[in-house]
Amino acid sequence: MTSFQDIVYSSRKNHENVHETIIDHHKAIESWFRNQWLKYPAPFYSSIDIRNSGFKISPVDTNLFPAGFNNLNKDFESLYITAVKHTLDSLKTKIDKILIIPEDHTRNLHYLESLKYLSSLIQKSGYEVRVSEPGIDKNKFKNTNSLLQYDDFIPDAVLLNNDLSSGIPGFLDDVKQVILPSKNIGWTTRSKSEHFNYYSDVCSNFSKLLQLDPWMIEPEFRNCGEINFKTKQGEDCLVYHAEKLFKIISEKYHAYNIDEKPYIIIKADSGTYGMGVISIDNIDQIKNLNRKQRNKMLSSKGNIIPDRVILQEGVYSFEEIKNSNSVAEPVIYSFSNYLIGGFYRAHGSKANNENLNSPGMIFHPIPLSDVCVSPDMNSPVDSQINRYYVYGVIARLAILAAAKELFNLD
Amino acid sequence: MTSFQDIVYSSRKNHENVHETIIDHHKAIESWFRNQWLKYPAPFYSSIDIRNSGFKISPVDTNLFPAGFNNLNKDFESLYITAVKHTLDSLKTKIDKILIIPEDHTRNLHYLESLKYLSSLIQKSGYEVRVSEPGIDKNKFKNTNSLLQYDDFIPDAVLLNNDLSSGIPGFLDDVKQVILPSKNIGWTTRSKSEHFNYYSDVCSNFSKLLQLDPWMIEPEFRNCGEINFKTKQGEDCLVYHAEKLFKIISEKYHAYNIDEKPYIIIKADSGTYGMGVISIDNIDQIKNLNRKQRNKMLSSKGNIIPDRVILQEGVYSFEEIKNSNSVAEPVIYSFSNYLIGGFYRAHGSKANNENLNSPGMIFHPIPLSDVCVSPDMNSPVDSQINRYYVYGVIARLAILAAAKELFNLD
Repeated sequence: MTSFQDIVYSSRKNHENVHETIIDHHKAIESWFRNQWLKYPAPFYSSIDIRNSGFKISPVDTNLFPAGFNNLNKDFESLYITAVKHTLDSLKTKIDKILIIPEDHTRNLHYLESLKYLSSLIQKSGYEVRVSEPGIDKNKFKNTNSLLQYDDFIPDAVLLNNDLSSGIPGFLDDVKQVILPSKNIGWTTRSKSEHFNYYSDVCSNFSKLLQLDPWMIEPEFRNCGEINFKTKQGEDCLVYHAEKLFKIISEKYHAYNIDEKPYIIIKADSGTYGMGVISIDNIDQIKNLNRKQRNKMLSSKGNIIPDRVILQEGVYSFEEIKNSNSVAEPVIYSFSNYLIGGFYRAHGSKANNENLNSPGMIFHPIPLSDVCVSPDMNSPVDSQINRYYVYGVIARLAILAAAKELFNLD
Repeated sequence: MTSFQDIVYSSRKNHENVHETIIDHHKAIESWFRNQWLKYPAPFYSSIDIRNSGFKISPVDTNLFPAGFNNLNKDFESLYITAVKHTLDSLKTKIDKILIIPEDHTRNLHYLESLKYLSSLIQKSGYEVRVSEPGIDKNKFKNTNSLLQYDDFIPDAVLLNNDLSSGIPGFLDDVKQVILPSKNIGWTTRSKSEHFNYYSDVCSNFSKLLQLDPWMIEPEFRNCGEINFKTKQGEDCLVYHAEKLFKIISEKYHAYNIDEKPYIIIKADSGTYGMGVISIDNIDQIKNLNRKQRNKMLSSKGNIIPDRVILQEGVYSFEEIKNSNSVAEPVIYSFSNYLIGGFYRAHGSKANNENLNSPGMIFHPIPLSDVCVSPDMNSPVDSQINRYYVYGVIARLAILAAAKELFNLD
């Protein structure tokens, strides 16, 4: 296992205002979060992809049906179990049996390992767990008087580990058991731009508290509907918004003396799995997308053509694995609002402005001693413990955005 | 740090019915506990002293104002912090500032270390913490319109780490802030026999669920009031109840083919700290208590003469530290109903029927991998993980008894 000391923070960028501001205000921040969680309960679980450039740190993806549990550091299992117990206890409902509905893509061994570990965590928390066969076989589900049954198993709660890219299955209609996190927050109904709208709202409140420019914790974004990458329908919209975005980012870089080239990420507005992600650093690249790139944008999961796309400000990652020249980005996991650590996703053949969630990526567990829970005022801003705290704040802002989303949807 | 492998379980006793029964019923047990916690919220924190003879396992002391936090394995700090966060979150009240009121005996360095660690855990959970000076100095406390203030600090919650042996201080009367665990559960109002009455009630329900003889998890006890060890006033009561207890224990030992000598612990019915504890294995020893033993019974904390005593069935400890001939007993810690591990208290010069909580004791952290959370059906009953699970069940039964006590008192 790689220890934290193997992850180095590039000192090329020294604009650590945002880290310092967050650490200095940690008491006010914790108090603020506590108040938010009283109003908006966090979704059952999440994993948050974070990019940290030093001068800016923000979530770039908020996954509410997380996989990758197999990459967590197993030495801290008791922490994960406590977080699961807490999350289920908070529902204040008598739950004994839990049915997990997994993703459809059965052949991914990593996913199956993640699923196995997730279900063992819930089992070890003292619940009876059944995992339905991957690939939703509707015949095994019965709904009698609104009581969902799978095979001979009648659960008290249904846990979705399926992002519902292919739609909400009919057997989840009119179910009286609790469905976690919610059937309304799958990719059929949810969009990334909607999530980042909520995130923007959260950041606006949070930034007032800290007197911080919200841009430092928030990626700018725009969205376009009705894009067809094959026929180039909707390309005007992409170009229009990309121009706007480049202008905003350039102005910010200029204002903060950041000597980097702005870039933009274009991806499907609904869906996951690092497919269909393009990184551009000038407008012409949109017009000149080659066939490979255009095909990539058509290959999203669930075989749904990504007719809606989001253009998101690219956030440089200036964290890299020591002696390996691999760019790294933290991924933070939680059950409800309880952070449980995570790992660095690293890639040896990707640049600091590229998507790391792609074949060849490797994982370095974040060794979770005091992870994310509190800063140490006697250590430097850039110390292990303080960096963890900042990751944890950013992750919780994203979770809070999802909580507000859920609060509004359910 | 001693690893678990250093703790050996004496195989002299092979009556493991109770361990096996508990492990076999773990699903029903977890479900039962969940239901109980919905009705009776657990007190803020606790530490439970457990004695395990193999044929019998039970709590012998339930401390609701625990010290000894400094003996916990610090590698698992993130677990402790999560448990603190959960416990405070569950109150569903906006709390930012916490005042800890510590014990009066300032000169105990171990206690001060424990206090320091406890307050750091709460701080790291994101709260502002102030510890009032040990030895309650009433002048620093102000109560204005029911709002308690210490110095210039106005807390949102008051955490007692003082067992109130010397009474409930006046400044805690009519306080609108939440007082944790409760001012009504200190030793002024509480008694061990009252607690074990609740424990007995809990065990009666629990044993029905498992079809277990409750004696296997419960120490028999009797209590006497108005005992004066100096004048021998009340000795008749002691003798009477001791005879009754010896009879019950002998019958049980006979019924279960246990080839051990029954013994009884006599201790103050209110109070802590291993003072005033006598172990006897026949009636004559009561009549012939020597001066040293009589003085010991007068030396309880807070300088209150222990006029009420509890006679408790002695539970042998057949766990010992390997290669050291030291008897060991597990001490399990929790925040609310969340077990966080603990340690073995061991003593090199005490027998398996003696009180280990006395000068010369040493601590071996319980290495908390999957501690107490779930058994492993593929491992032997006596394996590390399964023994932990059983400790955790017994500890939670004691916590539940305290929860019922609190529910009734508050």
